[in-house]
Amino acid sequence: MSSILHRGRSLATVRRLAGLAAFACVALAGCAGQEPPPPAVSAAPAAVPDAAALPSWQDGAARAAILKFVASVTRPGTSTYVPPEARIAVFDNDGTLWSEQPMPFQVLFMIDQVKNAAPHHPEWRRNPAFKALMAQDNAALARHSKELVQLLEAANSGMTTDQYDQSIRDWLANAKHPTLNRPYTDLVYQPQLELLSLLRANGFAIWIVSGGTAQFMRVWASKAYGIAPDHIIGTEEKLAYDTRGGKQVLIRKPGLDFVDDGAGKPVGIYRAIGRRPILAFGNSDGDREMLEYATSGPGPSLGLLLHHDNGAREFAYDRNAGSVRLDKAWDDAPARGWVVVSMKDDWKTVFPAPRPGSQ
Amino acid sequence: MSSILHRGRSLATVRRLAGLAAFACVALAGCAGQEPPPPAVSAAPAAVPDAAALPSWQDGAARAAILKFVASVTRPGTSTYVPPEARIAVFDNDGTLWSEQPMPFQVLFMIDQVKNAAPHHPEWRRNPAFKALMAQDNAALARHSKELVQLLEAANSGMTTDQYDQSIRDWLANAKHPTLNRPYTDLVYQPQLELLSLLRANGFAIWIVSGGTAQFMRVWASKAYGIAPDHIIGTEEKLAYDTRGGKQVLIRKPGLDFVDDGAGKPVGIYRAIGRRPILAFGNSDGDREMLEYATSGPGPSLGLLLHHDNGAREFAYDRNAGSVRLDKAWDDAPARGWVVVSMKDDWKTVFPAPRPGSQ
Repeated sequence: MSSILHRGRSLATVRRLAGLAAFACVALAGCAGQEPPPPAVSAAPAAVPDAAALPSWQDGAARAAILKFVASVTRPGTSTYVPPEARIAVFDNDGTLWSEQPMPFQVLFMIDQVKNAAPHHPEWRRNPAFKALMAQDNAALARHSKELVQLLEAANSGMTTDQYDQSIRDWLANAKHPTLNRPYTDLVYQPQLELLSLLRANGFAIWIVSGGTAQFMRVWASKAYGIAPDHIIGTEEKLAYDTRGGKQVLIRKPGLDFVDDGAGKPVGIYRAIGRRPILAFGNSDGDREMLEYATSGPGPSLGLLLHHDNGAREFAYDRNAGSVRLDKAWDDAPARGWVVVSMKDDWKTVFPAPRPGSQ
Repeated sequence: MSSILHRGRSLATVRRLAGLAAFACVALAGCAGQEPPPPAVSAAPAAVPDAAALPSWQDGAARAAILKFVASVTRPGTSTYVPPEARIAVFDNDGTLWSEQPMPFQVLFMIDQVKNAAPHHPEWRRNPAFKALMAQDNAALARHSKELVQLLEAANSGMTTDQYDQSIRDWLANAKHPTLNRPYTDLVYQPQLELLSLLRANGFAIWIVSGGTAQFMRVWASKAYGIAPDHIIGTEEKLAYDTRGGKQVLIRKPGLDFVDDGAGKPVGIYRAIGRRPILAFGNSDGDREMLEYATSGPGPSLGLLLHHDNGAREFAYDRNAGSVRLDKAWDDAPARGWVVVSMKDDWKTVFPAPRPGSQ
């Protein structure tokens, strides 16, 4: 299914998928390798170089900036010391902790839910969006984005949260990425796993702050990242409290209560955490306000942006990549002191080695 | 100010205070000692009696039920064992962890904010709600509830979250309860502090789930209860991301995005925690769905209701107490197996001993 969509030309359809209006929406054609010169990286050499830390990171300015920051906030008695309870790091998910091309994986899952539900909805055969989806007719899909959203909402709501969790697990156990040909949960970034470990070892609390939903991530994020269900902030779908079979449950409803993207991210962070983070890592303009918020507090802070400039190993997209483009945030980086991490130059490897039997 | 309001007769005004529509709203005349017979307590003797645990609890059925439950979920290798990551306890705040009469203390704070802001609002002198507030004319207040809500919103929004935090701190440092004559943060319940400690020592994660706002509680809950800012779920006021003095901040706006009361509590719990709690403690019908949700999972669980039947030491109110009444939840308790805790009979003491110099 994704093969159709990533060949398309209009963003509008994907933008509105399932009402996840602000959810990371990738240029359907996307991924072209237009690469403007990166802004200067505002990193200084690490005060305390640690040869063993971040082994998948090249020994460059980005790694040095991270090590220097972690050392500076954990050294008691200095002016840059930050007590453990205030060491809060926030990470975007799609495109920052795992891949997001040809489009955010949650959207691919939601589309597959439509296909799975189709046998129970004979009436969909007359739905122009459904016909376009099955015929891989992307131009028609773009014309019928409203009907597509209705389809996605119908196929992704109405069940209990427990039932939906199970459908996410089932999908992840079987689905593979259309071009990288690996299970989606294999497409986490090895250098970021090392960064999470480094931060955790230095007393940081780590939170995901995503345009996707917490429900989609919670099913796999503990195993993939070591991040617990109560440390995931996301876009919030409507839920209704109800009784099914004599038990009290939560039922998924169409529509959104909160969009955790752009200026929504600081609000989501404040509501869930109640403190201003001191480290933020994103990869697109949807993360810009999160980085601003984290790096405009009174104490030391570090903002990081991952630049997808690596079509050979992953994908290459930035200013050209629709609504997940890295554009304004990239322009802001030098003046804000944000560190731009080049996937091509700063990472020795991108993905973990395939697990035996996972291919 | 509170002395006016708790003598009044209409609930409507308080119900709508500052738009906290579902926030615990007490009968203004309230607190009369009408006491129907309590339902049977579904507790068995503790399997592992612990003479030292919960020292402020009488050695009765409620204490025994708590000790038995904690022992049963922490004993590895048994059918009732619950792994630590699933040991989630949720507590209502107002009336469960601290007092809530003559009305929730957050509402008293918000009213005082109106008085503090009055010198900057000469136009309020012509506002009938403001005149009623200053003249302690409760009948007039009830007639002008709409204008009162506008006043409360005006006085409690527009500033940054940091500025508002400071105003909460300033208020708590100086305000005293109108009849108990102690600082509000002294009016936490000693037996509940011991219960929190017991649960924490047994690997439980403890969350507050309140009809009030997280912002109001976060300022003092760490010190008062040992509950961190990121473990407080509450009603959510509108917030806007903005820039002030070149720094990115969150500005408080009038209105609510989410009401964490009644059927909202399971939704708030699911969104923040992502798991079903196994212990829930409340004191009013606004906690009923939270208790239902916590006690209808597949494994062991414990629901608890605090019955305010103790006018001599605190307050006495239940079916007669306006929108924080204990009525339907009380009726449900026997069939649900919820334990009703009598403040009069189950607690040896109610409040901690006054701190030196705090009176």
